Amino acid sequence: MGEKTMGVGMIGYAFMGAAHSQAWRSAGHFFDLPVKARMTAICGRDRDATQAAATRLGWEGVETDWRALIARDDIQLIDICSPGDTHAEIAIAALAAGKHVLCEKPLANTVAEAELMVGAARKARTHGVRSMVGFNYRRVPAIALARKLVGEGRLGEIRHVRAQYLQDWIIDPQFPLVWRLQAERAGSGALGDIGAHIVDATQFIVGDHLAGVSGLTETFVKERPLPTSSSGLSAGAGGGKGAVTVDDAALFIGRFHGGALGSFEATRFAGGRKNAIRIEINGSLGSLAFDFEAMNELHLYDGRSSNETGGFTRILVTEPEHPYLRAWWPPGHLLGYEHSFTHEIADLLTDLGNDTDPTPSFEDGLQVQQVLAAVTESAAASSHWQTLPTRARTAA
Amino acid sequence: MGEKTMGVGMIGYAFMGAAHSQAWRSAGHFFDLPVKARMTAICGRDRDATQAAATRLGWEGVETDWRALIARDDIQLIDICSPGDTHAEIAIAALAAGKHVLCEKPLANTVAEAELMVGAARKARTHGVRSMVGFNYRRVPAIALARKLVGEGRLGEIRHVRAQYLQDWIIDPQFPLVWRLQAERAGSGALGDIGAHIVDATQFIVGDHLAGVSGLTETFVKERPLPTSSSGLSAGAGGGKGAVTVDDAALFIGRFHGGALGSFEATRFAGGRKNAIRIEINGSLGSLAFDFEAMNELHLYDGRSSNETGGFTRILVTEPEHPYLRAWWPPGHLLGYEHSFTHEIADLLTDLGNDTDPTPSFEDGLQVQQVLAAVTESAAASSHWQTLPTRARTAA
Amino acid sequence: MGEKTMGVGMIGYAFMGAAHSQAWRSAGHFFDLPVKARMTAICGRDRDATQAAATRLGWEGVETDWRALIARDDIQLIDICSPGDTHAEIAIAALAAGKHVLCEKPLANTVAEAELMVGAARKARTHGVRSMVGFNYRRVPAIALARKLVGEGRLGEIRHVRAQYLQDWIIDPQFPLVWRLQAERAGSGALGDIGAHIVDATQFIVGDHLAGVSGLTETFVKERPLPTSSSGLSAGAGGGKGAVTVDDAALFIGRFHGGALGSFEATRFAGGRKNAIRIEINGSLGSLAFDFEAMNELHLYDGRSSNETGGFTRILVTEPEHPYLRAWWPPGHLLGYEHSFTHEIADLLTDLGNDTDPTPSFEDGLQVQQVLAAVTESAAASSHWQTLPTRARTAA
Amino acid sequence: MGEKTMGVGMIGYAFMGAAHSQAWRSAGHFFDLPVKARMTAICGRDRDATQAAATRLGWEGVETDWRALIARDDIQLIDICSPGDTHAEIAIAALAAGKHVLCEKPLANTVAEAELMVGAARKARTHGVRSMVGFNYRRVPAIALARKLVGEGRLGEIRHVRAQYLQDWIIDPQFPLVWRLQAERAGSGALGDIGAHIVDATQFIVGDHLAGVSGLTETFVKERPLPTSSSGLSAGAGGGKGAVTVDDAALFIGRFHGGALGSFEATRFAGGRKNAIRIEINGSLGSLAFDFEAMNELHLYDGRSSNETGGFTRILVTEPEHPYLRAWWPPGHLLGYEHSFTHEIADLLTDLGNDTDPTPSFEDGLQVQQVLAAVTESAAASSHWQTLPTRARTAA
Repeated sequence: MGEKTMGVGMIGYAFMGAAHSQAWRSAGHFFDLPVKARMTAICGRDRDATQAAATRLGWEGVETDWRALIARDDIQLIDICSPGDTHAEIAIAALAAGKHVLCEKPLANTVAEAELMVGAARKARTHGVRSMVGFNYRRVPAIALARKLVGEGRLGEIRHVRAQYLQDWIIDPQFPLVWRLQAERAGSGALGDIGAHIVDATQFIVGDHLAGVSGLTETFVKERPLPTSSSGLSAGAGGGKGAVTVDDAALFIGRFHGGALGSFEATRFAGGRKNAIRIEINGSLGSLAFDFEAMNELHLYDGRSSNETGGFTRILVTEPEHPYLRAWWPPGHLLGYEHSFTHEIADLLTDLGNDTDPTPSFEDGLQVQQVLAAVTESAAASSHWQTLPTRARTAA
Repeated sequence: MGEKTMGVGMIGYAFMGAAHSQAWRSAGHFFDLPVKARMTAICGRDRDATQAAATRLGWEGVETDWRALIARDDIQLIDICSPGDTHAEIAIAALAAGKHVLCEKPLANTVAEAELMVGAARKARTHGVRSMVGFNYRRVPAIALARKLVGEGRLGEIRHVRAQYLQDWIIDPQFPLVWRLQAERAGSGALGDIGAHIVDATQFIVGDHLAGVSGLTETFVKERPLPTSSSGLSAGAGGGKGAVTVDDAALFIGRFHGGALGSFEATRFAGGRKNAIRIEINGSLGSLAFDFEAMNELHLYDGRSSNETGGFTRILVTEPEHPYLRAWWPPGHLLGYEHSFTHEIADLLTDLGNDTDPTPSFEDGLQVQQVLAAVTESAAASSHWQTLPTRARTAA
Repeated sequence: MGEKTMGVGMIGYAFMGAAHSQAWRSAGHFFDLPVKARMTAICGRDRDATQAAATRLGWEGVETDWRALIARDDIQLIDICSPGDTHAEIAIAALAAGKHVLCEKPLANTVAEAELMVGAARKARTHGVRSMVGFNYRRVPAIALARKLVGEGRLGEIRHVRAQYLQDWIIDPQFPLVWRLQAERAGSGALGDIGAHIVDATQFIVGDHLAGVSGLTETFVKERPLPTSSSGLSAGAGGGKGAVTVDDAALFIGRFHGGALGSFEATRFAGGRKNAIRIEINGSLGSLAFDFEAMNELHLYDGRSSNETGGFTRILVTEPEHPYLRAWWPPGHLLGYEHSFTHEIADLLTDLGNDTDPTPSFEDGLQVQQVLAAVTESAAASSHWQTLPTRARTAA
Repeated sequence: MGEKTMGVGMIGYAFMGAAHSQAWRSAGHFFDLPVKARMTAICGRDRDATQAAATRLGWEGVETDWRALIARDDIQLIDICSPGDTHAEIAIAALAAGKHVLCEKPLANTVAEAELMVGAARKARTHGVRSMVGFNYRRVPAIALARKLVGEGRLGEIRHVRAQYLQDWIIDPQFPLVWRLQAERAGSGALGDIGAHIVDATQFIVGDHLAGVSGLTETFVKERPLPTSSSGLSAGAGGGKGAVTVDDAALFIGRFHGGALGSFEATRFAGGRKNAIRIEINGSLGSLAFDFEAMNELHLYDGRSSNETGGFTRILVTEPEHPYLRAWWPPGHLLGYEHSFTHEIADLLTDLGNDTDPTPSFEDGLQVQQVLAAVTESAAASSHWQTLPTRARTAA
């Protein structure tokens, strides 16, 4: 391991903060990294709660004001795990202060905010200050393998992209109005929270961007009990009710620049589906299928195989030849959800050590935001087609 | 078994004709039916080929003119298995001649034709002459069970309908321009051929109709070799090329009258998927999932089960308590594709014997045709939303 | 189709009789056969019940004495579907009378009976009178494909054979004492009824015989209500109780002549498993896996594939290149349980037309009986190893 | 978190050492533990290699003599991750020195060694010095849930236990003769390495012990290239060949005290199976099925459900109601292999903090060793039945 050490400051310590912390703690023990991360401080509004989190999660210090965190000389990287409405202000300030930034997805709650962030990132980049948006699913080995196989042309010309992100955690109408159900905090509902992941993951895999979309959104449960506390994925219900101001589900169809058709669905109302990210790609030469509920598997169909023995091959993505796997256990010994973050941190530290820009970039985050905005606009305009800004295919 | 016998005349003897023949031969051996079907004659243009088919498929006689078939006194039921462009004329003539009609799906190639057929069916019905459209997948036991469970309210209020019909048989650009790829014969491509099935099957299961749709269609391979013969699913390629005038794939999103969102996809370009009819329904109280490639299974999620032991239950739909199964083998002894037709014929003969109208009716076929037309129109209008004619929920 | 017609007489018309009847009715409609079967008569003890069965199942006439059936000049083939204790006497008489014989498995209830039957079959064979034992699962396309792949050396040297036949139909201690639970009628329990199938199927697939076994059997429910009627898989319970004289479950391990290890289990007490025939074969170059509950699938692992994209390929055994499939539907349109019998009859009629001996032969049936007997003996002798008679590898 | 801190010394730093290290680093960040573990030192023979491992794995210091490690005052717990032939001497010395011991499985290479270790553990226990054997799979949440459900009687009386541990890592005859293939280091081959896991896991789940067994073992590849280095799961091949002195595969059948039949298979020659631990339990009221290659799932069949909607329910074992899951992520966010060790350490530290004896105990390890020895003896005696020492059912 290298000698260079980098102080990290993290903002937010709920679900994402816990996942990131495990990654910060673990990456260096499994990957040979040019930079050693020091878990310097986390930041939250309540000092006692933040201190308790720091102890639990393994951070050395705490701050209660994110501006103070950014200002610290012993911190060179800011990891933003707070709700979406805070991303733009924090990220822009951090970059301006010369701090590298890892920002959780979605990059921002609006395209306008995301554009400002991209501007800040571009400017900072000229000074060697780098930024990354946290689409962790890119680092699930099976998804990284999918991208590699598509990039090598194994599937030929891509014709179909089919993606669903299905959850069911708010199916109960008595589930309270947590911040993720409030437009002013979360921007959108299923669309931005989970739809963003499948937009990014599919574009990443096929190496192409959506060129246009037609969408539909719905809020099935229009009022919910006010929560006793506004953070987290769950919370007790307090008195009174409030309006749900985000979508419960979003569906859209679209076309990629390269001609593929896309079908997307994000919902929090698919009973029995807990975190089912299902992606299927069909090309002229083959197909791929993935389901996060069996995240260590990738199913590959090679259209050039004989009819006699052809079919989908279930690849158990645990071989040393698979992305990230050389760092882990023998074949057949599965990885879990948190490993996607460990890989994200390992890749980020590698890029920082090598003075290269990490991906996905803020530009990538903006592009996803543009897709989400187009879906919302289409849904508001009788599903009329919304053309997306042209952008070259992503680099392999 | 009853004493009443009914002469059947079938038009067309390719794929559908062979499937129907096995059903006509088998239904009475497994189900106790009030009417006995006699396989009187089949009709095709080429006498020798038709005679060979009659021998092979078990029909007593042959005709080379469908009008002659309809005119025969010893035939009381006409089974139409010819391409879609012939349905309207034959069905209308047969009904006018007082013959019951079973017409393969899609009912017609256009809404206008389908409306004429519905008119004819209504008129005939007043004289006890009955008609049915052949959406055979309704009679797959797992799908019939799905409808029963939804009809009993087991899933609560339906929120999501997700359906894909995936095939790959024309993925090779050298596959010839068979009649199913010609608009004037087939009406549409994947949309009408297989999309029609998932529109009907999902509406049947949820007992509700689509209220509006937004669609997208594509023809990936725009020119193909001319075939040496124009019938069948496969054919040798002759000289020259011709334009593919139907869609290779159709995607659409929609809303049901009851508020459910729908996501549909029909394609013949999903490499490795041979006949994958995948249907998933999410309701406020539970979910269902089905894949025809495992057609003897239905997966049921009961949202009221405990978190500790809840999940999707794989029901092997081979118990005597399941639809149609009492007629067949002990539990665990699977049924196949052709059984859906045997059930269709058994139900049809039961209805005819009981003087009740079989379902799906020509009105049901017209309604599906209206959905397909709306998808086509939306696709031609920048995916703009197309509202469908209002119609009450289907009877349970 | 050829001109030669052969009269068939079937004995027994319960579960197996119904399955065979559908096969006799269907084979000629799908396969091009040199001999046409005529369903001349069935035989049962009760004339009214037998007549009703004949009408339902499509047989022309009835007999109430199997000797009379055998004596008929218009019958050239006897299909034995009665309980195991009747097989030897009927088959030997039929062969002596110059009638071809298809005998349901297990060939007999004892090795001694089976040996007599083999003697009769050998003698008859010299006169062109042929015989076959009805191990229908050999004709499940996925199993026939498995044999073909192993025969071609795709799996290399076979190391492991793993087979389970799991059912649960008598798990309820109130299920009555039907004939299949009586040693004098059925010979043995799970061992002979379903264990016989996996012995035959695995030996067929690997093309090798078991060389020795060590076994264990158990009767979990030792007394059951007497049935009101003794035939069939289910029956009402009458008054009184009787001793269960067959095994409820049988387990054994063994070695094949070629060095493979075998692990076998047959039980009627595996709750939730209805007809789960699970076979897995591991060789030096690859592996195969099959489960009858998904009978249209075969899973193949090619050990020479790269680690990056290797894994088990799910072959949907519905392609024209697969055994028996050219006769049926397009790819992806599944077959069911009964098709194994249709294939059996098609193969039998083809062999009879071609004057070749059908397989599996009575010798094959005897060899399976020897394995079952060795398991029983081992179970009675503290699981001590029982060496089986040497016999050359089966012909490919 | 509590204030008490305990120094840990670990011996061995290969595969098991890496897995244990991640657990020692992580347990306290996810579980609220009464004792804080300090990763004081690891021990290996080569100082440089050990120092590099210490740095990589997060240990403060190193020792090159395990006796020195045990002697350190700042170490209260010894974690034994070295090969099986070292377990007895180290564990007995550590316990005698008043150090708690966590010993990897199998407890020892022989029953005699295991008995000495049990003696040492019992003596130490009287002084509050505790011991545990590392059967980590007990802490896979799905397996812990299986035990809970069986313990609650959900499956009724247990009739069948079916377990396979399938790997393929030495299928290549050129794979070298690593220490795991040498009897004097590893004791046995597949039997002790992986067979031990399924013996323990199934006995744990059903809460009962095997009463007798009949076994079979085989060494398919009898000679292998000598390795260049003797540690680890893989190694380069050096010059010359040596005899494989352990089994490549072991099969056995058995009976549990409670009457259940057991079928077991452990092999390193199942091509395409990487770490397939498959366990199936059938009881009078229900069944369970598990496969480690889908380790976050448990399949439960409730025999009291209706035939109409019954079947195996796929429980995604990621709910807060499931064992260990409250510490981790939201539902649907999977865990991996390493979490079984984190749970093991968390349980161990909890027990040490609460002054209770951890499980599985050395007695449990001995009992597994007795089963393995009985299999070996039976295999050497023509599979003759070997009766196991009587022992009461395990406590729930």
